[in-house]
Amino acid sequence: MTMLEIIEKKKWGQALNEAEIRFFAEAAAAKSVPDYQLAAMLMAIRLNGMTDEETTLLTLAMRDSGDVVDLSSIPGIKVDKHSTGGVGDTTTLVLAPLVAACGAPVAKMSGRGLGHTGGTLDKMESIPGMRVALTEEAFLKQVREIGVAVVGQTGRLAPADRTLYALRDVTATVDSIPLIVSSILSKKLAAGSDAIVLDVKTGSGALMRDLESSIHLAEIMVRVGTLAGKPTVALISGMDQPLGTHVGNALEVREAIDILAGRAGGDLKEVSLTLGGFMLMLAGKAGSHDEAVRMLEAALDRGAGLRKLREMIAAQGGDPRVCEDPDLLPQAPVRKTVFCGQAGYVSKMDTTALGLAAQAMGAGRLRAEDPIDYAVGYVLRVRLGDQVTPETPLCELHARTGADAVQAEAAIRAAISISDTPREKARNFLALITRDGVIRYGE
Amino acid sequence: MTMLEIIEKKKWGQALNEAEIRFFAEAAAAKSVPDYQLAAMLMAIRLNGMTDEETTLLTLAMRDSGDVVDLSSIPGIKVDKHSTGGVGDTTTLVLAPLVAACGAPVAKMSGRGLGHTGGTLDKMESIPGMRVALTEEAFLKQVREIGVAVVGQTGRLAPADRTLYALRDVTATVDSIPLIVSSILSKKLAAGSDAIVLDVKTGSGALMRDLESSIHLAEIMVRVGTLAGKPTVALISGMDQPLGTHVGNALEVREAIDILAGRAGGDLKEVSLTLGGFMLMLAGKAGSHDEAVRMLEAALDRGAGLRKLREMIAAQGGDPRVCEDPDLLPQAPVRKTVFCGQAGYVSKMDTTALGLAAQAMGAGRLRAEDPIDYAVGYVLRVRLGDQVTPETPLCELHARTGADAVQAEAAIRAAISISDTPREKARNFLALITRDGVIRYGE
Repeated sequence: MTMLEIIEKKKWGQALNEAEIRFFAEAAAAKSVPDYQLAAMLMAIRLNGMTDEETTLLTLAMRDSGDVVDLSSIPGIKVDKHSTGGVGDTTTLVLAPLVAACGAPVAKMSGRGLGHTGGTLDKMESIPGMRVALTEEAFLKQVREIGVAVVGQTGRLAPADRTLYALRDVTATVDSIPLIVSSILSKKLAAGSDAIVLDVKTGSGALMRDLESSIHLAEIMVRVGTLAGKPTVALISGMDQPLGTHVGNALEVREAIDILAGRAGGDLKEVSLTLGGFMLMLAGKAGSHDEAVRMLEAALDRGAGLRKLREMIAAQGGDPRVCEDPDLLPQAPVRKTVFCGQAGYVSKMDTTALGLAAQAMGAGRLRAEDPIDYAVGYVLRVRLGDQVTPETPLCELHARTGADAVQAEAAIRAAISISDTPREKARNFLALITRDGVIRYGE
Repeated sequence: MTMLEIIEKKKWGQALNEAEIRFFAEAAAAKSVPDYQLAAMLMAIRLNGMTDEETTLLTLAMRDSGDVVDLSSIPGIKVDKHSTGGVGDTTTLVLAPLVAACGAPVAKMSGRGLGHTGGTLDKMESIPGMRVALTEEAFLKQVREIGVAVVGQTGRLAPADRTLYALRDVTATVDSIPLIVSSILSKKLAAGSDAIVLDVKTGSGALMRDLESSIHLAEIMVRVGTLAGKPTVALISGMDQPLGTHVGNALEVREAIDILAGRAGGDLKEVSLTLGGFMLMLAGKAGSHDEAVRMLEAALDRGAGLRKLREMIAAQGGDPRVCEDPDLLPQAPVRKTVFCGQAGYVSKMDTTALGLAAQAMGAGRLRAEDPIDYAVGYVLRVRLGDQVTPETPLCELHARTGADAVQAEAAIRAAISISDTPREKARNFLALITRDGVIRYGE
């Protein structure tokens, strides 16, 4: 079997068999065939697609291209959560301690930010002293002892994905459903959990910008996850505006702490509780989603979530006092409040542009090796549908320099439309996908 | 403009504009973008296609990626001929001297064999002393003086094609109509002729194996050639069996000499005269194709073609005595006559397999840098439709070793089917494509 024969077959739109798909994944992991053949194959997959069966086989082959974490030493059902990426999307830091506080172990490997979206590891590292690079042994021990750990990848997970992901980025093949599904799920399966909750974002800040393609992606992920033997559910959540009000690493940690401390609410809290509820259900800790959410709310109300976050920060070398005094997080030297400057209704946000504005301030990377400024970012003071006057604060900038603040102000203004026509608030949840089908949430 | 944006556009099936197509061709020529991006682009073109307008722009951009030969110092209308490649297909060595003998200048650049098909340059080099690497100056001078030259590329013609052709071969994108057309025509246009006769092969030894795709390819080539300002006609000719009876470099030169000497006839002669007739017409030397063919036959009958070949061989340093004594060509040490071994009708030939059998004997290359044995090959003694007995000679092998002969015999036997059912002889011509449309030749 040669790579050329496999490309040829996919070029003709034929379904590949397991041996062919394994050859492809192993070649990608070992870099044993030239990049130009992988690139031609990726474009053939992008244009001719893959059956669910093929996507499942590719996912499993990519999982098997590297280490698979063994979580069996942790008692209970381990449920992982994955988001397709958004702006101001800090659900992990809210739900991981809350779910753990309700008795379900959370052994979570997270990623870094790239492009307009943030990454949990970067946010965590804004906490002074916090370590995210744990050995597998230390990671497992921490989950066994305190019920929760959020770390970077241990070991060499899904190296085939590393090669293919980098190539997709430079060959216009990022937007292929089978390639997205296999990329996400191969890493999730390699991370060793028993069940998976997926948060598929849709809207102006998401990979999939319209609802139907988001649902389609979610359906295939649920099907492939289930075929791979892991109970999987997916929620379609809105990304037509940043999820939280805070955008930027330390700022997002602050918002998570504020929610766990009962000082803040809003969409980030709602989405975190909803996703966390599905995690508790899949972990067998609740009989219904309503019951699971009530358990999480109770944990929040009695301060158990914040205490669990404090334990996790301490266990990973961070300064746990940030939980009581978020001002201990890095602070940006320049603060500036920006006002709406016109009357009307907040009608539209270009959420990708808002993510890029934070990146340009220093909160994100242009290249994987770029450093990050944890302190910078902004706090949005308006939500879609809000009625505003010229004097209504639009956002509060946390910038490194005055010049950065001026640039960020222009970018944020350009990304937020204020119009004369009222609009409804944005919905957080648009659909739920389980193995039984799609439930669309009403308008 | 970036290569990524151009791939993205083609991925969505959009037509590229001239600036984008020039960027792609220049990037391929200069190798200024990574191979994996070119590979993704080639697969996107293969699967999403190109409009005729795009194919024309790509052809012109590839032509302009290197030198364009200036034939204006040669008086008269210069007509080029190109074949899409076949087995036992030596038309150039028959028609170039004949057309020149009728007063139309033939300034021809040919190629080498690769895969199962032979190449004119290799065949010519089997003549002792023959040079095919002439400077552009010497090439032009020879055509001015004796009316004909057949050489390798002078200068750096269509370097974009060199890069893309090599990549297509290893990314399963050889069979893309726009890529085939732009590859062939960019080189033909860069070779500087005023008009083009195309010989598009169809059948078991051709790039395009069915008639409709061959006609489709020919129509687009005629359209693009015409749009590029060069009168172009295309003939669809059969490649369900080797065109000549002789397969192998020196053997094919011998067959061409035999035809020019009036000792041999058959399909190779018929196709050569027909293609040569279109060349004479486009060169303005004949008012009708019938008249042109009669001129060529007359030149053949009076020995003017053989004399012109003799002049050309002498001018390019070869031993002209081969024209009178073909035994001066390289001879293989092992000769063996193979018999049919069964009675019936020759019903089918796998012509690609027959080409590969000659290649395996040493007549062709596996890699571009492989050496060639000019002497080896075989002479087929049967044609499609022939009725045979077990004692009818099937072919005469010219091999390097006895072992090679055994292997070749098995390969040739496997490639030729003899069955109980009679079949018609194969047709040489299936259709003619001009700017005015398609003429299909009746059954």
